[in-house]
Amino acid sequence: MQLHDLTWPAVEAYLQRSGGVIIPIGSTEQHGPSGVIGTDAMVADAIARETGRRADLLVAPLFSIGVAEHHMAFPGTLSLRPSTLIALLLDTLHSLAHHGFRRFFFINGHGGNIATLKAAFSEIHAGQRGQGGDRALGCALVNWYEVADVVRLRKQYYADREGRHATPSEIAVIQYLRPDLIHDQPLPPPGPLRSEVQGADDFRAKYPDGRMGGWSDLANPQQGQALFEAAVRGLVRQVPAFFSS
Amino acid sequence: MQLHDLTWPAVEAYLQRSGGVIIPIGSTEQHGPSGVIGTDAMVADAIARETGRRADLLVAPLFSIGVAEHHMAFPGTLSLRPSTLIALLLDTLHSLAHHGFRRFFFINGHGGNIATLKAAFSEIHAGQRGQGGDRALGCALVNWYEVADVVRLRKQYYADREGRHATPSEIAVIQYLRPDLIHDQPLPPPGPLRSEVQGADDFRAKYPDGRMGGWSDLANPQQGQALFEAAVRGLVRQVPAFFSS
Amino acid sequence: MQLHDLTWPAVEAYLQRSGGVIIPIGSTEQHGPSGVIGTDAMVADAIARETGRRADLLVAPLFSIGVAEHHMAFPGTLSLRPSTLIALLLDTLHSLAHHGFRRFFFINGHGGNIATLKAAFSEIHAGQRGQGGDRALGCALVNWYEVADVVRLRKQYYADREGRHATPSEIAVIQYLRPDLIHDQPLPPPGPLRSEVQGADDFRAKYPDGRMGGWSDLANPQQGQALFEAAVRGLVRQVPAFFSS
Amino acid sequence: MQLHDLTWPAVEAYLQRSGGVIIPIGSTEQHGPSGVIGTDAMVADAIARETGRRADLLVAPLFSIGVAEHHMAFPGTLSLRPSTLIALLLDTLHSLAHHGFRRFFFINGHGGNIATLKAAFSEIHAGQRGQGGDRALGCALVNWYEVADVVRLRKQYYADREGRHATPSEIAVIQYLRPDLIHDQPLPPPGPLRSEVQGADDFRAKYPDGRMGGWSDLANPQQGQALFEAAVRGLVRQVPAFFSS
Amino acid sequence: MQLHDLTWPAVEAYLQRSGGVIIPIGSTEQHGPSGVIGTDAMVADAIARETGRRADLLVAPLFSIGVAEHHMAFPGTLSLRPSTLIALLLDTLHSLAHHGFRRFFFINGHGGNIATLKAAFSEIHAGQRGQGGDRALGCALVNWYEVADVVRLRKQYYADREGRHATPSEIAVIQYLRPDLIHDQPLPPPGPLRSEVQGADDFRAKYPDGRMGGWSDLANPQQGQALFEAAVRGLVRQVPAFFSS
Amino acid sequence: MQLHDLTWPAVEAYLQRSGGVIIPIGSTEQHGPSGVIGTDAMVADAIARETGRRADLLVAPLFSIGVAEHHMAFPGTLSLRPSTLIALLLDTLHSLAHHGFRRFFFINGHGGNIATLKAAFSEIHAGQRGQGGDRALGCALVNWYEVADVVRLRKQYYADREGRHATPSEIAVIQYLRPDLIHDQPLPPPGPLRSEVQGADDFRAKYPDGRMGGWSDLANPQQGQALFEAAVRGLVRQVPAFFSS
Repeated sequence: MQLHDLTWPAVEAYLQRSGGVIIPIGSTEQHGPSGVIGTDAMVADAIARETGRRADLLVAPLFSIGVAEHHMAFPGTLSLRPSTLIALLLDTLHSLAHHGFRRFFFINGHGGNIATLKAAFSEIHAGQRGQGGDRALGCALVNWYEVADVVRLRKQYYADREGRHATPSEIAVIQYLRPDLIHDQPLPPPGPLRSEVQGADDFRAKYPDGRMGGWSDLANPQQGQALFEAAVRGLVRQVPAFFSS
Repeated sequence: MQLHDLTWPAVEAYLQRSGGVIIPIGSTEQHGPSGVIGTDAMVADAIARETGRRADLLVAPLFSIGVAEHHMAFPGTLSLRPSTLIALLLDTLHSLAHHGFRRFFFINGHGGNIATLKAAFSEIHAGQRGQGGDRALGCALVNWYEVADVVRLRKQYYADREGRHATPSEIAVIQYLRPDLIHDQPLPPPGPLRSEVQGADDFRAKYPDGRMGGWSDLANPQQGQALFEAAVRGLVRQVPAFFSS
Repeated sequence: MQLHDLTWPAVEAYLQRSGGVIIPIGSTEQHGPSGVIGTDAMVADAIARETGRRADLLVAPLFSIGVAEHHMAFPGTLSLRPSTLIALLLDTLHSLAHHGFRRFFFINGHGGNIATLKAAFSEIHAGQRGQGGDRALGCALVNWYEVADVVRLRKQYYADREGRHATPSEIAVIQYLRPDLIHDQPLPPPGPLRSEVQGADDFRAKYPDGRMGGWSDLANPQQGQALFEAAVRGLVRQVPAFFSS
Repeated sequence: MQLHDLTWPAVEAYLQRSGGVIIPIGSTEQHGPSGVIGTDAMVADAIARETGRRADLLVAPLFSIGVAEHHMAFPGTLSLRPSTLIALLLDTLHSLAHHGFRRFFFINGHGGNIATLKAAFSEIHAGQRGQGGDRALGCALVNWYEVADVVRLRKQYYADREGRHATPSEIAVIQYLRPDLIHDQPLPPPGPLRSEVQGADDFRAKYPDGRMGGWSDLANPQQGQALFEAAVRGLVRQVPAFFSS
Repeated sequence: MQLHDLTWPAVEAYLQRSGGVIIPIGSTEQHGPSGVIGTDAMVADAIARETGRRADLLVAPLFSIGVAEHHMAFPGTLSLRPSTLIALLLDTLHSLAHHGFRRFFFINGHGGNIATLKAAFSEIHAGQRGQGGDRALGCALVNWYEVADVVRLRKQYYADREGRHATPSEIAVIQYLRPDLIHDQPLPPPGPLRSEVQGADDFRAKYPDGRMGGWSDLANPQQGQALFEAAVRGLVRQVPAFFSS
Repeated sequence: MQLHDLTWPAVEAYLQRSGGVIIPIGSTEQHGPSGVIGTDAMVADAIARETGRRADLLVAPLFSIGVAEHHMAFPGTLSLRPSTLIALLLDTLHSLAHHGFRRFFFINGHGGNIATLKAAFSEIHAGQRGQGGDRALGCALVNWYEVADVVRLRKQYYADREGRHATPSEIAVIQYLRPDLIHDQPLPPPGPLRSEVQGADDFRAKYPDGRMGGWSDLANPQQGQALFEAAVRGLVRQVPAFFSS
């Protein structure tokens, strides 16, 4: 159930039965020579939508731009300063809280967002300090690629060729969701993983085609479907438990 | 051509032929008893996508939350403070400018965003002060419902029953785009337009069901299609002219 | 009645009969080769003072610097970032509201301020969300040059030679208010109006002497007096109605 | 020479002979039962204007609202947060510096502004770090009531009845500048000076009519004129020396 | 080598041989009924000082307050909003970078700081975008309790009684560093670990004495010494490698 | 009594008898060729600790970085923007106030912090406006070098060779506190005091070795001890009086 598809009386009715909302957040950033720039955003959004559909829970509109500073040396990447993303999240959660929502479950598609999401949760809680435990706003964050069954499949399919960026698993999910975006030419092996990256220029110097150890061309749509299903199945269990906590 | 659907080498190639990008911006806000909350966002996004497709120009991901303070007394509405939206736009445009983009054409679906967009343009230009005229970043803003042929059709179809919010024209475009979202029960006439609204509570006191004079139930999908086509046709002329200015 | 001319017990007494205050806002910016830099500020201030005097209503001190980024390539122009002006307006209105003022009527002399004023109103209203309609702070904005009778006179006197900046109408009001500032040498015709301006350097490239289509030298003090009177007469009707709304 | 009274070509000409500008800053705050709310602003502005006139130097428009938190329990007082005033000053000085101004001489009428002005100077200098000494922007601050000859007269006229707020010296200058604002009824003696004030409510508890030890009713316009002349004479010496430093 | 103990010519000399600086960061927060509020700060500071001493590298002054929102329901805890800590870190790193420092190694004592430190690193890198890879500022972060040998000892000493807050390992290091602060009364077993905490009130409801599963009273100074040594030994290897990267 | 050395139940107990806390604040900045960079921080911290010990009052952790923009042309200096320091102070005082603290006594070691501390106090008070006088948060600020007996000794020992920065008095206190940091080579006389400094580059141009008129090499540890004792004795009287005000 998409917030965008409801009328306001329908939202009012929903609030009678649940104070929870699912919020997808991704990124708009390079994903190597064959992965599309919307990968993180499209995957998080699709998983959130399907989770909401199966669990009959509300899904907010996608946050499609995240903190992607490391990828800014590749054209097409967009990046927010963490302080901007914090402000954006605070305004959104305050709006939802004004209507009576109390539980916010973020489904995240981009590791670079995690620190900023946690900082935003801290600011939300600081604003509520001393107002009593059971009225507290609750925030949860799950990275779709860390759902237990997804982790298992990623290992099974790709082992150490999964890498850290432009991974075959995320490429596979896109291939499943958007067959029109399949780039199926073979790629050279990605270079080795390197020490900690320091900013955008250093990233590109270390990973010239944008892949961090991910053998993107191992992906196929069947694996993508299995990964997607594993993520949704895991989340359909976790989200309602959190909403009733 | 959606930015999200491209790889980074494809964006690099695009920049060889154009420095322009289309950016849709909407709002997540109540649209009366029969209009869905995503109306402004979905319409702006669909028009931007189709304009980009026909003109073969790049389209950025949708900004789906805008400044909708007046609508905050209705559940489901989300609203950003203008200062947050300014920060969000600046980070986005600075990211694009870093890659070499120079022309930003916003297709807007919500009147409440206009002031903040203009303020953001002013901040963008302040940051460039003294760097020379021909390198200047250029920003344009068109509200889809003010494209000349759209204005003509809105008058022809609805005359003074168009109103100012939850208008039959925007409802009609949604009916065309998303037949599954048609709420076709008849509605009582909306109340009269009132003097200037002062904040969310005052809005709801003056417009209890969320419509500002709009006879939403006059909408039909055929009119929606005509309005959509009129908007896209107008924009397909305007955008390339702006990008080559 | 100027706030600056009252003692605090006199303000306390005023609050017994009215919760409204008039606030003039202008700009400090170039006005072409013959118009003075304080034009927008001085005109807004004089009209506000006279309106307050005739209607026996309180007038706040002038905001003399606005958002004038487009004019920054001409020496003497001062410009605030929109976020700075928003902060300045919020602190001022919160101060006034702390004392019990509830209605703020801005008399504006500069088009470039409008977007930022509207953004500030939105932030004011966001801060009041859920506190009840009849306690709401109310903000109104009138551009003196758009008072109905002023518009009529501007057309009658200058027709399409009025232009958009350094207009003969504003120059005329200054000539009426400050005969010592009359520059009465003839000027060459201003160049034609151009497409949308993108920042300060682009403005100066398109309008090298600072006038945007305004034949400043058509101004005379008699017309200035008539324009001034028309503005004040219109406002003396509008302001009290708003204060009692 | 008022910036507001010049055209932009006149400012351009001025910059050929001087990079300095005088900036008056006051406050909008209660001044006891007989002093007007604009006292600090009107005095600083008048002294700055006359200094500029005699020294043939440029004077910027008045900053009429300052940091007056302590006075906020008296109706009519306006107060900016220090961070707002810092932003306002930075935008203004950056605008002036963009045109080539290099020396900024603030004539201040309100003790509560000093800390914030110094903080703003520090932020200005931080922004210039490492750009070389002789191009550095220079900021000076003089409180008119601390000009040497003014201090002497204040002691001679009022001795320990001068007090700290709503002082007879500032009231006297207003009486000289604005005879129409003379409140000449006798007042009871002000209460004694108290320990450090902690916020607005504490101020009003300690100083119920707003005077901090100032016997406002000792003021007369002749003293006001002498004080005004002493301030201007002192500044006419200091300002040009600073501008050529 | 403490920055605070050097003269500026000594810093200048140090910069001839290294561009790296060690920065300790802790927190000021409750550590259960027997742990002191300065635990995280004192441990991080002592480990950083000793690491700097042995490796002959520069150590900056301690950041003693962190993001500790979850602990705010216990008296004595201090907490910064993430946006404040980001600003503090940026100003500090920009100061160091102005002098020529290029590598910043944070030794952290508090898990709640990690997200904000990473967000700050992202803002630092955003500010450097496009300035070239080898000049890039480099930031590293190590939590002392995650140094490999420390992890091993924590398991060996306390196994699953280590818990997550007010852990015996951190208490032990304090006992080693500050024998005067040993609280050696036995404590009741801590309650079980609970689901995700939502803000300060929820934390105290779930963990009434402040311990999150940590059997603080298992600590002893000998273990504290061994943990401290393990941390320092590990860091003495890591830091120089990072500085020369 | 150091906050860092207490458990949270001990802080809870302290709040039963006092709502006051002492807060040391210094700076990390050059102190000439023989003074160490931590001078202001170490002196303020030591005086605060000893004052707290003798008066049995709580002492917060040191703020070791201040506003030191003028000193930024000397390596090792760290400087916060005033707006950053304001945010840091506000978060800290709000944390303390949340626990019930009501009186904050800052012991300051650096003149450059004064303006920003006062600005922060003003922001604190603005946030409390209208909440009643006796609940008001109270802030006091004493510069240790301005305690009456310290002023007397500084004149007696050094007369006009005290200067304004890298003064023999502060160097002497460091020599007393940290004999290991004594640099006892003789120095050439410092240059003369110059007109107002404008930023870091101008400071270094005017004071090439960092001393502003201070004959640092006149210092000795015995004088340092006497100065330290004078400061502590004065503060042991002032602080409790303020806490019970």
